[in-house]
Amino acid sequence: MSRIDTRGESAAEVLISRLLARVGNLGGGLHEPLFAGNEREYVTECIETGYVSSVGSFVTRFEKELALYVGAQHAVAVVNGTSALHLALVAVGVKPGDEVIVPALSFVATASAVALAGATPHFVDVSSETWGIDSTELRAYVSSSLRRDDTRLINKESGRPVTAIVPMHTLGHPCDGEGIKAVAKEFGLAFVEDAAESLGSFAGGRHTGLAGNAGVFSFNGNKTITTGGGGAIVTNDAELAARLRHLSTTAKIPHRFEFDHDAVGYNYRMPNINAALGVAQLEQLPDLVERQRSLHRKYEEALGDITLGSLRSESPGTTSNYWLQAFLLASGLAPQRDDILKACLDAGIPVRPLWRPLNTLTPYLQSPSAPTPVAEDLYSRVVCLPSSASLVP
Amino acid sequence: MSRIDTRGESAAEVLISRLLARVGNLGGGLHEPLFAGNEREYVTECIETGYVSSVGSFVTRFEKELALYVGAQHAVAVVNGTSALHLALVAVGVKPGDEVIVPALSFVATASAVALAGATPHFVDVSSETWGIDSTELRAYVSSSLRRDDTRLINKESGRPVTAIVPMHTLGHPCDGEGIKAVAKEFGLAFVEDAAESLGSFAGGRHTGLAGNAGVFSFNGNKTITTGGGGAIVTNDAELAARLRHLSTTAKIPHRFEFDHDAVGYNYRMPNINAALGVAQLEQLPDLVERQRSLHRKYEEALGDITLGSLRSESPGTTSNYWLQAFLLASGLAPQRDDILKACLDAGIPVRPLWRPLNTLTPYLQSPSAPTPVAEDLYSRVVCLPSSASLVP
Repeated sequence: MSRIDTRGESAAEVLISRLLARVGNLGGGLHEPLFAGNEREYVTECIETGYVSSVGSFVTRFEKELALYVGAQHAVAVVNGTSALHLALVAVGVKPGDEVIVPALSFVATASAVALAGATPHFVDVSSETWGIDSTELRAYVSSSLRRDDTRLINKESGRPVTAIVPMHTLGHPCDGEGIKAVAKEFGLAFVEDAAESLGSFAGGRHTGLAGNAGVFSFNGNKTITTGGGGAIVTNDAELAARLRHLSTTAKIPHRFEFDHDAVGYNYRMPNINAALGVAQLEQLPDLVERQRSLHRKYEEALGDITLGSLRSESPGTTSNYWLQAFLLASGLAPQRDDILKACLDAGIPVRPLWRPLNTLTPYLQSPSAPTPVAEDLYSRVVCLPSSASLVP
Repeated sequence: MSRIDTRGESAAEVLISRLLARVGNLGGGLHEPLFAGNEREYVTECIETGYVSSVGSFVTRFEKELALYVGAQHAVAVVNGTSALHLALVAVGVKPGDEVIVPALSFVATASAVALAGATPHFVDVSSETWGIDSTELRAYVSSSLRRDDTRLINKESGRPVTAIVPMHTLGHPCDGEGIKAVAKEFGLAFVEDAAESLGSFAGGRHTGLAGNAGVFSFNGNKTITTGGGGAIVTNDAELAARLRHLSTTAKIPHRFEFDHDAVGYNYRMPNINAALGVAQLEQLPDLVERQRSLHRKYEEALGDITLGSLRSESPGTTSNYWLQAFLLASGLAPQRDDILKACLDAGIPVRPLWRPLNTLTPYLQSPSAPTPVAEDLYSRVVCLPSSASLVP
């Protein structure tokens, strides 16, 4: 690629002029949903039949079709991605007082779900290659910072049991699920995969969310497909699926008329009207992913030859859903990140940075953490670009 | 009223023949929603504009119109009634390890919400008049079973702090909110009103849900109005409303682009597509309540003169939404309750009993409890009758 002459323009000016000239009308939101299928028809059907709530055929249909798409044996639909993570953690056995390993670089829900389960997030760094947890570094960290106590892993410093790990596939790019699975197995950690951003992303030919005991998806309005608000947990473990399903309701024991409940239920079930939207969206999922991949090629054409930084492209061996397109500024431009974000927003281009590393947020300042230089570096340099599927005709 | 001659018929036969002959087509569900207004239009508007998720004008509109209807200054819409109760308990200051006083007779969510907040439900009995907590008995129980420790109330037996009370308005009939408020104030208890079943019910001219620090509604598919799944918290406390709103999202600090969060957020916000349904339903709420009240008159005509028991009519000084119509079997018929329920179900009449007293459920067997003879008696004798608004033309 040829080095371009920026003729005295600022980094922000170069980015803005390239985006406006070569990507097109960027004036909407950062990631808006696209409803081009049976959304109206299915939702209207809910209203006409009266089945809008947690009893209804669209919930079952959504779960079946989601499971089929990702290649899981079971899927349980719930009210959102946070509730999916929370419930998955509880169902795999995380208890109040435990610690759960999560990446410092993630949307806050990865840590909130741990806190909602009464546990403490224990942060680790991410890899500069995958932007997710790296299994080699994870093994080294776990070996040095945790100790085994009979069958459990204990944080040497806090003395608390470390019982699970929740890697996240950042912006839709799969991290090393298989490697992490091996570490989880070696050290006896439950493994919940935060695939909230990676519906439609594959690693080694397998869909994300299937490496661990359970995988979690989000169908928030800004995701690849949306149910308004929604989430799901997938698993190949029939017993875990039954427990998830039971706890996602009011944990009622089936009976013709008695109200008996054998556990504390979470009432996290997805309503039928949201599932109706989801079934319509799932029908378009292959097209929606293809649009994001086309959009990435458009960004490659627009920004591929500039020296200000590099586009985040899919890692070797993976197929990404490119949920959020991202541009990694060159190291020297980190101090200009905020000015670039502001200039783009002023120019009507909806951009955003990555999330502040979770170990710097007020509620998690006291949480244990490995050093996280890569998370901090990526946070200081990434500009997320407009990623609505409608940007591709 | 004249004593009828049952001519050797069983109690079940008398009830069934009366219901079929005088109430009409009872073949649907126990309490089905009625969509006769702008539901389709508003939901379609969400899909056409792309605003289906947590950002959208219907959420704000639903909150404003709900607050206006009940006469509250603030309303915060969330994913369901359980999440509303859970969030309200957290926001009024309930901490893990606390005890919270709840009625033994309620839908399980009243207790689950306490458990989800990491606290333990402490059960008390209900009144045979209101079917909810009685403030006189409550004062006596609190005075004898709890002790003051500086500013806190302590359960003498468990040693745990008792920090809140959650009365519930059973089947829509208001219990003694004002009396309970006085006890809560006297003993320094936070007061969350479980008005999940009582949207449209008033006591002393004031809507239920406004006596305490916060009141909670449910918009599940079987409620007076529905949003598919949904709930809301109302309050007149501006500071509490702000905290509820903040915690119901991801507790993000407003910023043009940074992702910073100053607390553990619950991600309980109601999606716009569900709120759209809610706005359409709220427009019909006065009519829906009037239908339930007419249905009650129809049941009075059908069952008012029989000696098998009595219909639950509104308590003096209250106006009930008659969410679920209920028939209280005469004491001698308690042993026949199950047979009556089965016979009605076999005849295609959707009935159900009250909930098993919560202090008898597996997850709460170890929870503290006052003696609860009234809850047990009502549970043994109440038959809830078909209550769909569509039963009235």
